[in-house]
Amino acid sequence: MRIFFMGERVEEPADHPVIRPSINAVAATFDLAVADPELASASSDLTGAPVNRFLHLTGSKEDVVAQNKMQRRLGQMTGTCFQRCVGMDAINSLYSVTHDVDAAHGTDYHDRFAAWLAEVQRLNLVVGGAMTDVKGDRSRGPSQQEDPDLFVRVVERREDGIVIRGAKAHQTGCINSHWILVMPTMRLTEADKEWSVVCAIPVEAAGLTYIYGRQSCDTRAMEGEIDAGNATYSGQEALIVIEDVFVPWEHVFLDGEYEFAAELVERFTNYHRRSYVCKAGVGDVLIGAAALVADYNGVEGASHIRDKLVEMVHLNETIYGAGIAASHESFQRPAGNWENDSMLANVCKQNVTRFPYEIGRLAQDLAGGAVVTLPSEADFASDETGPLLDKYFRGRPGVPTEWRVRVLRLIENMTMGRNAVGYLTESLHGAGSPQAQRVQIARQMDVEAKKDLARHLAGIDDA
Amino acid sequence: MRIFFMGERVEEPADHPVIRPSINAVAATFDLAVADPELASASSDLTGAPVNRFLHLTGSKEDVVAQNKMQRRLGQMTGTCFQRCVGMDAINSLYSVTHDVDAAHGTDYHDRFAAWLAEVQRLNLVVGGAMTDVKGDRSRGPSQQEDPDLFVRVVERREDGIVIRGAKAHQTGCINSHWILVMPTMRLTEADKEWSVVCAIPVEAAGLTYIYGRQSCDTRAMEGEIDAGNATYSGQEALIVIEDVFVPWEHVFLDGEYEFAAELVERFTNYHRRSYVCKAGVGDVLIGAAALVADYNGVEGASHIRDKLVEMVHLNETIYGAGIAASHESFQRPAGNWENDSMLANVCKQNVTRFPYEIGRLAQDLAGGAVVTLPSEADFASDETGPLLDKYFRGRPGVPTEWRVRVLRLIENMTMGRNAVGYLTESLHGAGSPQAQRVQIARQMDVEAKKDLARHLAGIDDA
Amino acid sequence: MRIFFMGERVEEPADHPVIRPSINAVAATFDLAVADPELASASSDLTGAPVNRFLHLTGSKEDVVAQNKMQRRLGQMTGTCFQRCVGMDAINSLYSVTHDVDAAHGTDYHDRFAAWLAEVQRLNLVVGGAMTDVKGDRSRGPSQQEDPDLFVRVVERREDGIVIRGAKAHQTGCINSHWILVMPTMRLTEADKEWSVVCAIPVEAAGLTYIYGRQSCDTRAMEGEIDAGNATYSGQEALIVIEDVFVPWEHVFLDGEYEFAAELVERFTNYHRRSYVCKAGVGDVLIGAAALVADYNGVEGASHIRDKLVEMVHLNETIYGAGIAASHESFQRPAGNWENDSMLANVCKQNVTRFPYEIGRLAQDLAGGAVVTLPSEADFASDETGPLLDKYFRGRPGVPTEWRVRVLRLIENMTMGRNAVGYLTESLHGAGSPQAQRVQIARQMDVEAKKDLARHLAGIDDA
Amino acid sequence: MRIFFMGERVEEPADHPVIRPSINAVAATFDLAVADPELASASSDLTGAPVNRFLHLTGSKEDVVAQNKMQRRLGQMTGTCFQRCVGMDAINSLYSVTHDVDAAHGTDYHDRFAAWLAEVQRLNLVVGGAMTDVKGDRSRGPSQQEDPDLFVRVVERREDGIVIRGAKAHQTGCINSHWILVMPTMRLTEADKEWSVVCAIPVEAAGLTYIYGRQSCDTRAMEGEIDAGNATYSGQEALIVIEDVFVPWEHVFLDGEYEFAAELVERFTNYHRRSYVCKAGVGDVLIGAAALVADYNGVEGASHIRDKLVEMVHLNETIYGAGIAASHESFQRPAGNWENDSMLANVCKQNVTRFPYEIGRLAQDLAGGAVVTLPSEADFASDETGPLLDKYFRGRPGVPTEWRVRVLRLIENMTMGRNAVGYLTESLHGAGSPQAQRVQIARQMDVEAKKDLARHLAGIDDA
Repeated sequence: MRIFFMGERVEEPADHPVIRPSINAVAATFDLAVADPELASASSDLTGAPVNRFLHLTGSKEDVVAQNKMQRRLGQMTGTCFQRCVGMDAINSLYSVTHDVDAAHGTDYHDRFAAWLAEVQRLNLVVGGAMTDVKGDRSRGPSQQEDPDLFVRVVERREDGIVIRGAKAHQTGCINSHWILVMPTMRLTEADKEWSVVCAIPVEAAGLTYIYGRQSCDTRAMEGEIDAGNATYSGQEALIVIEDVFVPWEHVFLDGEYEFAAELVERFTNYHRRSYVCKAGVGDVLIGAAALVADYNGVEGASHIRDKLVEMVHLNETIYGAGIAASHESFQRPAGNWENDSMLANVCKQNVTRFPYEIGRLAQDLAGGAVVTLPSEADFASDETGPLLDKYFRGRPGVPTEWRVRVLRLIENMTMGRNAVGYLTESLHGAGSPQAQRVQIARQMDVEAKKDLARHLAGIDDA
Repeated sequence: MRIFFMGERVEEPADHPVIRPSINAVAATFDLAVADPELASASSDLTGAPVNRFLHLTGSKEDVVAQNKMQRRLGQMTGTCFQRCVGMDAINSLYSVTHDVDAAHGTDYHDRFAAWLAEVQRLNLVVGGAMTDVKGDRSRGPSQQEDPDLFVRVVERREDGIVIRGAKAHQTGCINSHWILVMPTMRLTEADKEWSVVCAIPVEAAGLTYIYGRQSCDTRAMEGEIDAGNATYSGQEALIVIEDVFVPWEHVFLDGEYEFAAELVERFTNYHRRSYVCKAGVGDVLIGAAALVADYNGVEGASHIRDKLVEMVHLNETIYGAGIAASHESFQRPAGNWENDSMLANVCKQNVTRFPYEIGRLAQDLAGGAVVTLPSEADFASDETGPLLDKYFRGRPGVPTEWRVRVLRLIENMTMGRNAVGYLTESLHGAGSPQAQRVQIARQMDVEAKKDLARHLAGIDDA
Repeated sequence: MRIFFMGERVEEPADHPVIRPSINAVAATFDLAVADPELASASSDLTGAPVNRFLHLTGSKEDVVAQNKMQRRLGQMTGTCFQRCVGMDAINSLYSVTHDVDAAHGTDYHDRFAAWLAEVQRLNLVVGGAMTDVKGDRSRGPSQQEDPDLFVRVVERREDGIVIRGAKAHQTGCINSHWILVMPTMRLTEADKEWSVVCAIPVEAAGLTYIYGRQSCDTRAMEGEIDAGNATYSGQEALIVIEDVFVPWEHVFLDGEYEFAAELVERFTNYHRRSYVCKAGVGDVLIGAAALVADYNGVEGASHIRDKLVEMVHLNETIYGAGIAASHESFQRPAGNWENDSMLANVCKQNVTRFPYEIGRLAQDLAGGAVVTLPSEADFASDETGPLLDKYFRGRPGVPTEWRVRVLRLIENMTMGRNAVGYLTESLHGAGSPQAQRVQIARQMDVEAKKDLARHLAGIDDA
Repeated sequence: MRIFFMGERVEEPADHPVIRPSINAVAATFDLAVADPELASASSDLTGAPVNRFLHLTGSKEDVVAQNKMQRRLGQMTGTCFQRCVGMDAINSLYSVTHDVDAAHGTDYHDRFAAWLAEVQRLNLVVGGAMTDVKGDRSRGPSQQEDPDLFVRVVERREDGIVIRGAKAHQTGCINSHWILVMPTMRLTEADKEWSVVCAIPVEAAGLTYIYGRQSCDTRAMEGEIDAGNATYSGQEALIVIEDVFVPWEHVFLDGEYEFAAELVERFTNYHRRSYVCKAGVGDVLIGAAALVADYNGVEGASHIRDKLVEMVHLNETIYGAGIAASHESFQRPAGNWENDSMLANVCKQNVTRFPYEIGRLAQDLAGGAVVTLPSEADFASDETGPLLDKYFRGRPGVPTEWRVRVLRLIENMTMGRNAVGYLTESLHGAGSPQAQRVQIARQMDVEAKKDLARHLAGIDDA
């Protein structure tokens, strides 16, 4: 793989201290499948064999709900983005969309897709989903851009397959994946036919370049352990540049059927907006950290501290509530797999764009100012300054200063450091920015039916 | 029944214009069972016969969820409180608590209760639940009050039954019920033994007096139709004074087992806090009314109007999400019936104490100032002023002035008039005031487990 | 005066129990001028004599600030809208606008206006300001409406004056005024020339009809004292219908200079949006009422109660802060009088559209459910039910039940009853609905200057 | 000076790339005094000479207001904390408190202090204020801690002065100061007499050690320019360890008069809580950055974008409003200098603990996800990846990619990077954490007077 970070080629990502924590987070998705198979694995209808739940097609409402419970648990385990939801949600939305495209066009995308997926399941691979194009001028569609490559498109069509070009931004966990599912990012029109492409490409395909995104405080991973806050786990996002990558037909799952682009985006974001209940799991960690620092400061019992913890929990569970409600209210697609309710998924995600920021603010409130003024790990370790810091950063009796420092660094990590990227900003923009959910809510809110309710009770007869 | 309203004895409530709309709302619960039996009725395990869902013991998760869907629908149909949820939730909590009391004490409350309930089901009666005592000094428990009657208590114990005294405040729909289930309102201690009583009393029992509560704009029901806003439906709350009412043993379901009072309150409020998804149905009406008035004003398409409707829907569905999530996550009690998740129910109710106020504010925003300055129905009907008002209160072309007036009156009704009582203030205090939910969230939030998550990721080893 | 209320002609408003409290509120503006002349009176530059501050042209920053302090005090004294701010703000904006119109057009509006105002000051009269037209289709301007009368316009132009027609909605205190200043309500174009009229008309002019607006719970004023909540004071809003009213030239202050309509609206709303600090005074009453009921309930010392009172005060003072900041930052107009800062005035008003609703919600929280379920005054007075109610609605020892009832009724009055009209809905729509402030903030926020700040620090050189 | 950062002794702070931007920010306070002397300088009553406003004793209300305007301007210029407000506010509070201590105890602190200050003014020095002790167990006072050094105290009392020991945390700009004013941090009791000390110490005094606090993304200053976001300016906070530092009597301004500790803290925080209007200046930068990125993305004109900018401005100006209202409402202390209103100052600060977080969230909303996924400056500069990034991170036509990157980095800097420390977390905790303002609001809200207003209107006569 051709990977760059901070101006340099990264030969082996697994050895890079900045990248390693993101690999650990993905590894947790394998570990959990072993430790708690009921939660994180399932039996595949495609292969009849057990499969990691992230690769599983939802066979029931319970399967959809189970995704959420697994997501929350992994959020609790890692305190960050474990990067596999995009793939899971892409698999499920493509499974049903390809089915519907075939029904409309007589194509055979669905079988191709199922065959590819069965193989992926058999090999227990990691799938990334690449939807977000780089977009250029946000007020214009693909065919209206000055540079046609600002949305991924087919530049050549050969007998054995297609050649695509473009770039996908903010690609969560792409370097930690085996396959990337390339998908369009918005509603397309007939003029956008060449951009109407869905396909699977192996991450090591010729023509792919990965440029790692910087995260707040990322280089602390190269310094030591404590200042990282959460030294073990992190998220990962990179730009994928696609320079004329060849894709054989068997891995092409849409090619020109532009009218299904919106449908695919909608189904994918439908699954994915409710996948953000993972943030309730991350929130559990942050609430715990806030309670811990209050404890170390000797004030956990103060009524206003207690009340702020309650508020954090209330907001966190509100996110969870809308998410699993969406999953419980799933319906079955003609393709056979199950998909969650859309209104509740959008509502879940809309809350995710708000509440983690408030939970983060409250966590900083409980942490106290030291969360942003603590000296470095090296200062604590130094003979000259270490004893002074140990003496003066102590909290209540019985608590080693280092514990207090560690939990403060974790709160910093989650509210402005490396994992704030995932807990806050990705909560805002992942699966669509806030306005995208509002557009969807507007579409589904059925104002006319609500007006009828009002007319009826107000005694307005406009028949 | 001995009923008073505005200083006068009410001989026949059904004929009283102020009371009638509350009866209509209860009637809707019967109508819906006929019109949509799948939604609003069920098959009783006690009798094997069909039964109104409000009288049904939850036999599955689906039953618990179905309650919520029925509640939202009835909120949409009536735009107010239809008054039967307290009884439904009381039945289900008593069914499981009496089972547990019997297991602990060798009593036979459960069988008594089941027998009573079977009969109520057979007769398709309305059951009210009377929990809230008048409380006096809120910083003291029953046995600490200057006046021992401020919480309902047993004043005499006879061979054939007990005699109780006290009063229950804010009794939703009590006058429209056939039976009242009297229950304690808080955690009790050994000193409160005489107050640890649960029983069923028929509404017409000797010794009962009902004093009807005033509602904002209640007397408009005696004036005409339009100014009432919602002339057909309203809620109802009254004070029940219990002056030495005799209850035979067969209708006594707890007597002195004080340690189960908290358990009963907790189970009841658990069901009941999630029952407040009815407000999402009422919210649907108010959102529809706001959209309608914007339409009549000619500005429904304005982006800020649209955005406010989206926000109203978002908040409304957030309430719904937490509620049905709680129901979906139900568990089975040893008695056999199913009970919803408590954390999510409390979260649902906590949101109910906030969002309807904001939805109401936004509805008034869309309504414009006329919602509080419209002249009276009589002025519109008058020969002198009617034509002037018809001319000057017109909205966009094509909309009769009266329609605009009617929807404005509906919004007034729901945001500061008669049904604001139920949509706003009852949303705040019903099933426990906001702080009661916070106490419950605090109990269940398991801070220690969350701290462990934080410790683990921060690398704190305090083993 | 030709006044109607609830379908009937009102011969003597001062004797009408529903209207009387609104007269009392206006009377308080006279009383305060006597009781605290420094606060509520000033020395007129026009006449050299003392004058009620509501009739005073602002001669300094201190004068502008003093308006706010007087307004807060009157809010505290009356707990409602005392109805004189519109006139005060109209006087000051017309004084400067007529000056500028004369400068542009060589007219003599300013002298006419000053002469009229001097006489009004000499007689110590009450001036109402009539700006809000009834508007019809809100997406169209005056000349685009189907009915040209939906905005007040000149229908005839005679040698001795003009004749106007139309209607003004939501006219605060109009019946309690001596003169009405008629003004346009929005930016006008050349096509709207006939609608570009400003003039003064005496309230008893031939052709004027007043139709009193209904308020929530208004008829309780005809029942007794306690249930009214605030029996002494209320606001007042009416529709003024203007059927071909003649206005002599000396009372015409704009006639066709359409390009000044926007300027007048802007200056008037500038003063007026900051005048809403009166609501901080009303908020003081409601906070006090909430504290009082908590006290009577025996829980004033509970930490969550205390914290809610703090939040209410915080929001209330935030309103006040922006308002008096606007006044302190006043500038002098060429006409000589002083006008407050516009950005801060709009910010003040925008907060007024939000915070009173939250303060009201918190007041209901502290009140408990009884605020909407209390029986009527007549029930408390009745021999049959009175003793029962006295016994069972008691709060903590030492507090007569009636006190508790009275404060609950006051909270009802301010949060959903008669004075909620002024405290809530008028706070939303008076001086322009929320969106009107946002438009004004958008105009004044000078995004380009802010972008320059960002460019500079980001090192972007786009010169 | 003995300074440590990341485990190493810093010999020359001005040469250290991480420290340098904080020095630049302080330098701006000197530059502004030259560029705009009316705003940022004044005429000293002590010396009769011009003086930087940060060293000026407030001689009038206008002086207090001018502080706020200067603070906002410096916030706009630097986009960060310029570190001199603590000193300014300490000077003014000590000036009046020493006066009052002398009046009570016959001491001569005031003259000592005035003499010291006059010299500081003559030399145009920078004064830091050291209030916040490290505190240990937050539930205990100084004399109750296990380690008595956790609050700064007098450990020796000599003929020529005192020796103090302890540490001060989060010391804003201390390394960039010439003098440090040491002050107690909380209300003290008789048992805390040895901790009741105020004095001035030169920053290079023997026994002082400075350990620099880490900030989010601090080491980016050592990498290049663009990724820093704001390469020129930053805040600074350090721990000052005081190991037996000698202070001659002439620099001791309180010694044992414990009952004035609370008074000093209150006056200082009173000035300082309103000093946080600087954040409105920083907010201006962030709003500008958000508008700029929306412009570069081609969507500045979208209605929801515009509306979010309005909301940001509204919140930002609400902060400003309460702050300058507090300053305008100043009163004169017996010492002669002027002090702002306390209620409004606390309200200002309370809003500062909330609104910057929401403004930051909205800025990230407008920025899009790239704000946290942009590759590094080195990747943009690299021959291999630079051209790809330039192509794919382009916004609307006409905007160089680098501009878009720069403004995104500025938003990152202010919302989760280095200057988020000052804009967010310091806004929360500086001048006291949120609860500290609430305690102060509670003290000053005069609930009893508000209850009287309610009693009066409710007709409750409890005389």
